[in-house]
Amino acid sequence: MTKVLAAGIGITKFGEHWEKSLRELAIEAVLKAIEDAGIERADIDALFVGSMSPGRFAGQEHVAALIAGELGLKCSATRVEAACASGGLAIRHAYHALLSGKAKCALVIGVEKMTEVGTGEAIITLASAADQEWEAYYGVTFPGLYAMLARRHMHEFGTAREQLALVAVKNHEHGSMNPIAQFRNKITVEDVLNSSPVAEPLNLLDCSPITDGAAAIVLCREDFLKVEKPVYLIGSGHATDTIALHERSSLVEIKTTKLAAKRAYEEAGIKPEQVDLAEVHDCFTIAEILAYEDLGFCNKGEGGKLIENGETSIKGRIPINTSGGLKACGHPVGATGVKQAVEIVIQLREEAGERQVKDARIGLTHNVGGSGATCVVHIWEKGFS
Amino acid sequence: MTKVLAAGIGITKFGEHWEKSLRELAIEAVLKAIEDAGIERADIDALFVGSMSPGRFAGQEHVAALIAGELGLKCSATRVEAACASGGLAIRHAYHALLSGKAKCALVIGVEKMTEVGTGEAIITLASAADQEWEAYYGVTFPGLYAMLARRHMHEFGTAREQLALVAVKNHEHGSMNPIAQFRNKITVEDVLNSSPVAEPLNLLDCSPITDGAAAIVLCREDFLKVEKPVYLIGSGHATDTIALHERSSLVEIKTTKLAAKRAYEEAGIKPEQVDLAEVHDCFTIAEILAYEDLGFCNKGEGGKLIENGETSIKGRIPINTSGGLKACGHPVGATGVKQAVEIVIQLREEAGERQVKDARIGLTHNVGGSGATCVVHIWEKGFS
Repeated sequence: MTKVLAAGIGITKFGEHWEKSLRELAIEAVLKAIEDAGIERADIDALFVGSMSPGRFAGQEHVAALIAGELGLKCSATRVEAACASGGLAIRHAYHALLSGKAKCALVIGVEKMTEVGTGEAIITLASAADQEWEAYYGVTFPGLYAMLARRHMHEFGTAREQLALVAVKNHEHGSMNPIAQFRNKITVEDVLNSSPVAEPLNLLDCSPITDGAAAIVLCREDFLKVEKPVYLIGSGHATDTIALHERSSLVEIKTTKLAAKRAYEEAGIKPEQVDLAEVHDCFTIAEILAYEDLGFCNKGEGGKLIENGETSIKGRIPINTSGGLKACGHPVGATGVKQAVEIVIQLREEAGERQVKDARIGLTHNVGGSGATCVVHIWEKGFS
Repeated sequence: MTKVLAAGIGITKFGEHWEKSLRELAIEAVLKAIEDAGIERADIDALFVGSMSPGRFAGQEHVAALIAGELGLKCSATRVEAACASGGLAIRHAYHALLSGKAKCALVIGVEKMTEVGTGEAIITLASAADQEWEAYYGVTFPGLYAMLARRHMHEFGTAREQLALVAVKNHEHGSMNPIAQFRNKITVEDVLNSSPVAEPLNLLDCSPITDGAAAIVLCREDFLKVEKPVYLIGSGHATDTIALHERSSLVEIKTTKLAAKRAYEEAGIKPEQVDLAEVHDCFTIAEILAYEDLGFCNKGEGGKLIENGETSIKGRIPINTSGGLKACGHPVGATGVKQAVEIVIQLREEAGERQVKDARIGLTHNVGGSGATCVVHIWEKGFS
C-alpha cells in the first residue's frame, strides 16, 4: 500500500487579525503550503477544511467551497466539524481519501476567525461545542467544565495547583521561541496563581486565548509525489463519547483520548514509549495533564509529576507542545489541529530553530473537541535520515 | 471490490417541530433506520452527519458527537458541511469510508432544526451559504440569487414564467402523496403566479420552505451485511465552484452539477438516459429546470419544455422529485440530501405506495449547496428483481 506524506506546510501568524478576513487568512496559509510542497494548484484533487463555527464567528458557512473557489479549484471540497477537533478531523478524512485512492494530493486547511464578534459572543459560540440542552443552557461554559475535571484530578491524585500552573509556564517558554505564537512572553508560576480567577481552580493564565489564524498542509500519496524531506502520516485514531460530562463514568480520564490513541498506535504499529515529541490539546492546563496520562506518556494520576520533573520541556524526555501549545501559540479553534501537524512536520524536518527537539523521529498530534467528546490522534514519522 | 448498499432508512415528518429538539429529530430518524436495517447499534463503526448550521439555528455545534453519544457509540463521528449539500456530502464520505475498508457499516444522518430562530434570523443564517463579503454583505439573499439565474434563463431561452410555476405545481402534486411531506396541498399555476412576490420573477410558491426534519440511512459493505431488497450506491460525484455568482462565466448553467454528474455517471458506468427517476435540488423552481439540463435529462435551454410536456411527473418519461422535492416535501437544509436518498431507496424497493414509479432500476440524487458552489450527485441501483 502506498504511504501518505506531508509534502508542504503553511501557517499564518496566530493572534488578533483585525485587518484580515477568514478567507484571507486561509489563503495566506494555503499559498505557503502549496509553494512549500512545490506542487501546482491543479494537482490538488481533494480539499478538506476544519473550522468549528465560521457561521457564528464570521457569518460564513460553506467555507470549503469559499476557499476552493478562491483558488480556482473545481475538486471535491469538504468542511468537517467536530468543535475544536475540526482541524485534526480534516487531516483524518484527507488521509482516508488518499489511502482509498479517491485522491492523490489533498489540501487540508484549518481556519478560524474569532475576533469578528465580541468576547461574550465568542464564549457563547464556543459553548455550542458543549451539550446545548444539558450544559450550555444551564450556564456552564468551557472553563467551568474543565475546572470540574481539574478539581476531581486534584481530589483523587493530589495534583497540585502549582503543577497545573507549570503547564502554562512551560508552554509560554516554548511559545517565546515560536515566531508565529500569539504570546511570546515568558511567565512564572506566581503569574499564573495571581492571574484573575476564571473558574476555580483555573485562572486566566490557565486558559488558552481567543485567536485568529489558519494553518495548511499538503498531504500526498507517495506514488504521486516524492519530496526531499518526507514526513509520513502513519496512524490515525478517532473516537467519540457523550458530550455532557455528567453522562461519563469518570472525570479523571478522557476516554476518547485513550481510545483514539490506541487506534492510532495500532495503525502505526508503535507504542507510546516510541513517541519522541507531541503536540497535545492544552485548551486549559488540566487538559495537558490529562493528555499525558491518557496518551500513555505516564501512569494515571502522575501527570502532575511529569510536568514538575521537567520531562515535557523541550530538553526533557518527551517534549510536549514545542509550538507553545494552545496556551501560548494561541487557539483559533478549527485551525489548532492543523497547526499541531505543522509544528510536528517542522520539528521532524529539523527546521524549528531554537526550539528544535534533538533526534526526534516520531511525533504525535492530539486534538480534542469539547470537553473530550471527540478526540483525534495522528502519528507522524520522519522519512529521511 | 465489495459493493456498498443501503441497508436501512429512516425519516421524520418534515414540517415545524416546535416540540422536538435537533437531537430528538435525529434520533427518531436514526432508530427507524437501524431497525429497518436489522443491525445492532454496535455494528456501526462510522457516523457521518450532514447539517448546515446547527450552531446558528439551534445553538449546537459538535452534532456528530452529540448523536453518537446519545446512541452510546464510541466510533468515528464526523459532521460534514457544504451548506444545503451537507446531507449529500455526508453520504459521499460514508461511501468512501466503506470503500476504503476503514468502516464496514456507516450511519448517515441529515438533520436541521430551523424553527428555533425567527424567520428573519433563518434567512440571514441561510445567507451564510452565500459569499459573506461579496454577496450577503450587500443584502442579497437566496431568492435574489436564484431570481438572477431565472431572469437570465428566461432571457436566453425564452423559458416562460408559467413553466417555472409548473415545477411547483408538479412537486405539490407529488408531495400530496407523501405522508412525511410538509405541504400536502395541491396548487395551480394560477396559485403560484398570484402568490406574493419574493424576488422577481420568483413568488412565494416558487420557493422551498423553512423546515425541521431529519433523515437517516444505514450504508454497509456488502461483505458485511446482505439484505433482502438491496439498493446499491454505484456512483458518487462532487464538484466545487466559486460561491459568488459574479465570478462565474455563465448564469444559465450550474457547472458543479455538470461536473459532479459527469463524475458520478462515469463511476457508475451509466449514461443520463439510463436514469429512471431522480430527486433534484429544487430550492427554487428555476433550480429544478437548471438541474434537468445540467444532469443531461434534456438539452440546455429545453428544461421549460420538459416540465411543460409532463415528462417529469410520476407517470412521465423521467419522474423527478416524487417525494415532493424541496418545494413540497420541505427543506430542512442539512437533511435534504439524505432525504433524497431515502426517497430513491423507497422507490427502488417499490414501497412508495400511490406515488410509486413503475419499473425503476436506477435512481439519481442531486444535492446543491448555495447557488451552485457545491454539488453532490449519487447514483443508486436496484439490486433485486
